[in-house]
Amino acid sequence: MARDASRVEAFSDAVIAIVLTLMAVELLQFGPDAPDGKGLPAALAHEWRAYLAYVITFAVVGQVWLTHHNMWRYVCRVDQMLLVLNLLLLMFVAAIPFTANLLADNLRGTPGEQRLTAALYVGTVLGEAIFFNLSWWWARRRGLLHPDLDPSLARAVARRFRLGPLLYLVAFAVVFVDPILSLLAYLLLVGLYVIRGPGDLPRAGQEAASP
Amino acid sequence: MARDASRVEAFSDAVIAIVLTLMAVELLQFGPDAPDGKGLPAALAHEWRAYLAYVITFAVVGQVWLTHHNMWRYVCRVDQMLLVLNLLLLMFVAAIPFTANLLADNLRGTPGEQRLTAALYVGTVLGEAIFFNLSWWWARRRGLLHPDLDPSLARAVARRFRLGPLLYLVAFAVVFVDPILSLLAYLLLVGLYVIRGPGDLPRAGQEAASP
Amino acid sequence: MARDASRVEAFSDAVIAIVLTLMAVELLQFGPDAPDGKGLPAALAHEWRAYLAYVITFAVVGQVWLTHHNMWRYVCRVDQMLLVLNLLLLMFVAAIPFTANLLADNLRGTPGEQRLTAALYVGTVLGEAIFFNLSWWWARRRGLLHPDLDPSLARAVARRFRLGPLLYLVAFAVVFVDPILSLLAYLLLVGLYVIRGPGDLPRAGQEAASP
Amino acid sequence: MARDASRVEAFSDAVIAIVLTLMAVELLQFGPDAPDGKGLPAALAHEWRAYLAYVITFAVVGQVWLTHHNMWRYVCRVDQMLLVLNLLLLMFVAAIPFTANLLADNLRGTPGEQRLTAALYVGTVLGEAIFFNLSWWWARRRGLLHPDLDPSLARAVARRFRLGPLLYLVAFAVVFVDPILSLLAYLLLVGLYVIRGPGDLPRAGQEAASP
Repeated sequence: MARDASRVEAFSDAVIAIVLTLMAVELLQFGPDAPDGKGLPAALAHEWRAYLAYVITFAVVGQVWLTHHNMWRYVCRVDQMLLVLNLLLLMFVAAIPFTANLLADNLRGTPGEQRLTAALYVGTVLGEAIFFNLSWWWARRRGLLHPDLDPSLARAVARRFRLGPLLYLVAFAVVFVDPILSLLAYLLLVGLYVIRGPGDLPRAGQEAASP
Repeated sequence: MARDASRVEAFSDAVIAIVLTLMAVELLQFGPDAPDGKGLPAALAHEWRAYLAYVITFAVVGQVWLTHHNMWRYVCRVDQMLLVLNLLLLMFVAAIPFTANLLADNLRGTPGEQRLTAALYVGTVLGEAIFFNLSWWWARRRGLLHPDLDPSLARAVARRFRLGPLLYLVAFAVVFVDPILSLLAYLLLVGLYVIRGPGDLPRAGQEAASP
Repeated sequence: MARDASRVEAFSDAVIAIVLTLMAVELLQFGPDAPDGKGLPAALAHEWRAYLAYVITFAVVGQVWLTHHNMWRYVCRVDQMLLVLNLLLLMFVAAIPFTANLLADNLRGTPGEQRLTAALYVGTVLGEAIFFNLSWWWARRRGLLHPDLDPSLARAVARRFRLGPLLYLVAFAVVFVDPILSLLAYLLLVGLYVIRGPGDLPRAGQEAASP
Repeated sequence: MARDASRVEAFSDAVIAIVLTLMAVELLQFGPDAPDGKGLPAALAHEWRAYLAYVITFAVVGQVWLTHHNMWRYVCRVDQMLLVLNLLLLMFVAAIPFTANLLADNLRGTPGEQRLTAALYVGTVLGEAIFFNLSWWWARRRGLLHPDLDPSLARAVARRFRLGPLLYLVAFAVVFVDPILSLLAYLLLVGLYVIRGPGDLPRAGQEAASP
């Protein structure tokens, strides 16, 4: 019972790992079916949307794992509500391959199809970002964080977490102007988050030099 | 060999995580196949049963994980019989997506189909609840629980665990009156269990203020 | 680096958990396809082989996990060869759903089909049993077992492990007389192994009262 | 927060375990579909490519796990960049079943198809080898390795890691001469790596007797 959070991490890891590899399962299904009539290179090239969905999913779900890993390093106790918030987070994460796939399938669709699938996708990611915020807010409020965590750092993390949904809402609004632009903006956000988001908390034993 | 139960938890976590994401695999299969003839919004709306099955499975299997997590925090040793009971529990848990999917598929079927699939579904959940009861009963009887666990608390947990199958049996009986009502009653039970079931044991270091 | 074997256990757990739930994935695929023409009860009853394969796989792979769990509790260090033997074991374990499924599909086939699929199935399980033997033999020989393990107990375990392949070979021979009888004999063996096989090693802190 | 690397290992284990068993999922799909028209033995023999892909994937992904396991035993702290490098490694690992399957499907294809699929396969493995190199290089440079690890040993490991991509590049070049020869050379490399590659680091408490 020493570190109550470790089983939550192991379970979340298993769920995120499955979500991360769902696209590899999708890829496999194109393997044997590809060479019908046309040559192999054309058949492979035809599936470019599947490769794109594979890379997008790895980037996005990989970033979710980074954020989860970094956030939960500072959680040392859990209560029932934090577990429920974490399950709701995972429910949105597990839906990402579905909406990412829809989005990739409709990148060349009509403007209406692009808008609808981009909105669904951004909605999924928005849900995920909201439950990260709620988890951190609840853990701070209920004193579930590691006692060694500097309160000013915990506040800085909360500020950065709050930024996520705001930026996603902007990306969501841009969808109605230009879906492709919205997607690019979104991928830029993922990149920024990997480099300088709540996923980049200072490590134990390092200086807390965050803004 | 310090804490014998940790590998059982890790294995059960992996099984439950896979069951939890099985529905996400199902969802994925609708992605590329949807837009045939009719427009995308209609094609997506057509799959509402898949989304319903996704949310139901997440709620139910998520609650199973919560209960498992909270119960096993108090198990500090295992014997062969407890491992077998846990495997039988997992066998019923892994069948939940199958029966939940059948149920969702037949929500608009004939009354006979609704009754059959609701009965199969409630039967699966009943099996799961029975093996939770047996696991806890066996762990108490064989002294496998953590020595710090207050015996009166262990009894209270057993009482709450016993309530589960009884309530499921009632839901099972209601199936023959009105399947939809039975499903609603069942979802209510899941919600109650999350808030105040055996999954809500007091944490180590907190007061044991349960009824 | 304290307990080198724990990551091997976690990895094996993940592989075994996936193998255990593969049949649940299979079951799911019957869900939406069942009601074509004939009524739902007939469609469900028609899939009895899938349910049988589900239960057989859970019994067999569950027993593999029990044995693996109990064996590895006594392994405290690993070397490269033990890791390779464990991977080969997992290669046979991961093939069990495939051969179990083939067997269930051909239970009502011609005698030749019954014989072939039963032989393939018993072959898979034989391979698994052989690599359990080799793992234990290697761990004993290289001094990788926990120093507290009584050598006479380690020898008793090795004897029980050796029994497995012998009994499977007998079941394999019976295949050519009567495949169904062979399957029943085999399931009996699994039951025996759960109750009194190498999977039932005495726990730490209990007397070593094995034959 | 004691050993920061353990959650990274657990997550990587889950991803690698899923990739390892993807082929078992593929195998399962041949089960019920095989006996159409022709006899069962012919139907089973017809799927030899699936069995080959199964064994190749187990060998290759098994070796990836061995290398990962052995490398990460010496990592005692992580930073954001090492996590990103590990995720990129996993992205290539998760693509191995797809390219291995393509390769097995086209072993009897035209020379052009053999060349293309062998190139894709070697490319995937090359990517994986490069990210193993980068991970080790980064962990050394940033002082993330265990302080007890002898620097001369860390250098020897880096030398052996560097060998991997070079050898794969040679195998890649041979593809344009003879794809089958390239595949055989590649499998030989995997075998060598299992016996004497970076996956065979001396264990804690053993002499560091590597070249």
